[in-house]
Amino acid sequence: MLINVPERVVEDALRGMAAAHPELTVDVANRVVVRRDAPVANKVGLVSGGGSGHEPLHGGFVGPGMLDAACPGEVFTSPVPDQMLRAAAAVDSGEGVLFVVKNYTGDVLNFEMAAELAAEEGIRVETVVVRDDVALPAGEGAGRRGTGGTLFVERLAGAVAEAGAPLERVTEVAHRVADACRSFGVALAPCSTPARGGPTFDLPEGELELGIGIHGEPGRERRGMMTSGEIADATVDALVGDLRPDDPVLVLVNGMGATPLLELYGYASEVSRALAERSVVPARMLVGDYVTSLDMAGCSVTLCPVDEELLRLWETPVRTAALRWGA
Amino acid sequence: MLINVPERVVEDALRGMAAAHPELTVDVANRVVVRRDAPVANKVGLVSGGGSGHEPLHGGFVGPGMLDAACPGEVFTSPVPDQMLRAAAAVDSGEGVLFVVKNYTGDVLNFEMAAELAAEEGIRVETVVVRDDVALPAGEGAGRRGTGGTLFVERLAGAVAEAGAPLERVTEVAHRVADACRSFGVALAPCSTPARGGPTFDLPEGELELGIGIHGEPGRERRGMMTSGEIADATVDALVGDLRPDDPVLVLVNGMGATPLLELYGYASEVSRALAERSVVPARMLVGDYVTSLDMAGCSVTLCPVDEELLRLWETPVRTAALRWGA
Repeated sequence: MLINVPERVVEDALRGMAAAHPELTVDVANRVVVRRDAPVANKVGLVSGGGSGHEPLHGGFVGPGMLDAACPGEVFTSPVPDQMLRAAAAVDSGEGVLFVVKNYTGDVLNFEMAAELAAEEGIRVETVVVRDDVALPAGEGAGRRGTGGTLFVERLAGAVAEAGAPLERVTEVAHRVADACRSFGVALAPCSTPARGGPTFDLPEGELELGIGIHGEPGRERRGMMTSGEIADATVDALVGDLRPDDPVLVLVNGMGATPLLELYGYASEVSRALAERSVVPARMLVGDYVTSLDMAGCSVTLCPVDEELLRLWETPVRTAALRWGA
Repeated sequence: MLINVPERVVEDALRGMAAAHPELTVDVANRVVVRRDAPVANKVGLVSGGGSGHEPLHGGFVGPGMLDAACPGEVFTSPVPDQMLRAAAAVDSGEGVLFVVKNYTGDVLNFEMAAELAAEEGIRVETVVVRDDVALPAGEGAGRRGTGGTLFVERLAGAVAEAGAPLERVTEVAHRVADACRSFGVALAPCSTPARGGPTFDLPEGELELGIGIHGEPGRERRGMMTSGEIADATVDALVGDLRPDDPVLVLVNGMGATPLLELYGYASEVSRALAERSVVPARMLVGDYVTSLDMAGCSVTLCPVDEELLRLWETPVRTAALRWGA
């Protein structure tokens, strides 16, 4: 691994972000990444965070048109309420703050606690929890995991916040997007965490796991190797569900970390074909490593059905380390 | 691997590019990727290409402010002259075309042949060969390999071409940048090509190879695992050479494909420290997977010393799949 010592991985990465991105304020000691011009007057602040190891999520999504701040935890471990509170205080212009939280027990609890602490300091906080992973049934245990859909929530809520919408409206957009998104992931090889120094789960060569989470949580089914086309069919079948045909859809074809971009674009062509065969119309398709799982080999697809308004918001300028267009 | 069959990997990827990037014209059958508005009136055309497996290079760099067209070969195999000729014809507005060629025997020969064919069709062609890899001595065999420096040549020559400079001037900038760039790469684990289905070279776990090429060509030295800081010191020592201290430098901290972005940012912080200790001033630092080697684990660093003019060109708008800012 390209590291110094496992204990310093997150700190080292934050130092690197500071070196590469003068447009961000990186508080290495307290582990908070904030857009440099925060708090932006008359703008709702967007804060997210979660365990490290999913980069560019969330720090790579901090900037105009997306997040105001991100709080990275240790690898695959929730950040602590103090980080979130600092982030909220740094970005609150008086218009309030929206927390975007992936649905994992630690993250949900810690963001809840941070929201209470922020309220005590007079910061209005709303929270949206993202549960887009359709691999597991919705009603069981802690519920569905938050994965690639987080990108769409952060981007679309970020866009409407940047346009000056009040907290209620930003929250409404975030909930609408979170409810609409659905994701499904496949692992071809496990990832290795710095602390373990080896694979987080066992996946024999020549097999793959359908419905995998972004921390190597078990999936729906283990199978012998499939072609890219077969994986796309299985994935799209798991995703289309109650989707109304001909609704425009934003599509994320996401690499988990170690999948070559050459292969990921090939997979995107199969996803595109599989969607077309089911009368789903990709309005925009984003291909790349956006919500990763360290060096896991594999891919996920997220569908985000949109109306005209959301599609227009998607197109507004965004300027972050990992997602950037317009202005 | 996330593929259908090895023989169709490049074709599938091009289909995916077409699906994801309506701003590009992708000729899948002839394997040419062209910016949709080509030829741009009164603008010199920039064409590059090379073996596939290094994505986003070169197709991901096609767009305003960078390349006009890219020709992908088979994995780790030069494209053929016919592709380059088609690309030249598609982008020539009458102002001529610059070929940006990485220094590998096949690429150099095929681009030479394409330049002759283009001349016969009345297209003025100039060529710049990039030989930025300092791992091997400059004077031996086929000379130094072209690697990460290609990004800077394509970007800076692309910027001056976009501004309307004539072919002589675009060529001069390209040569100046190509001469100035120097790169050094390190592999922590080999890559696997679709055709082989397994590793391209043998690198025992717990060892790394310093001075590796982007096709797994042997490096300068094999060693036991080093920390990220030690790798940065060895890399920067290999790079600074005759660099004048206090010259501003563009820095690329490049992932080879399977290195987690979390680790790459940590490495960027060590590169930044190592440069500072040697009085080198990074004017801008780019961190990410830009010139890859399929799923190789590892990293490279490219330094591109710049003057005020080149720094200004770097900052002008660019709008490609992989590099994008401004406008």
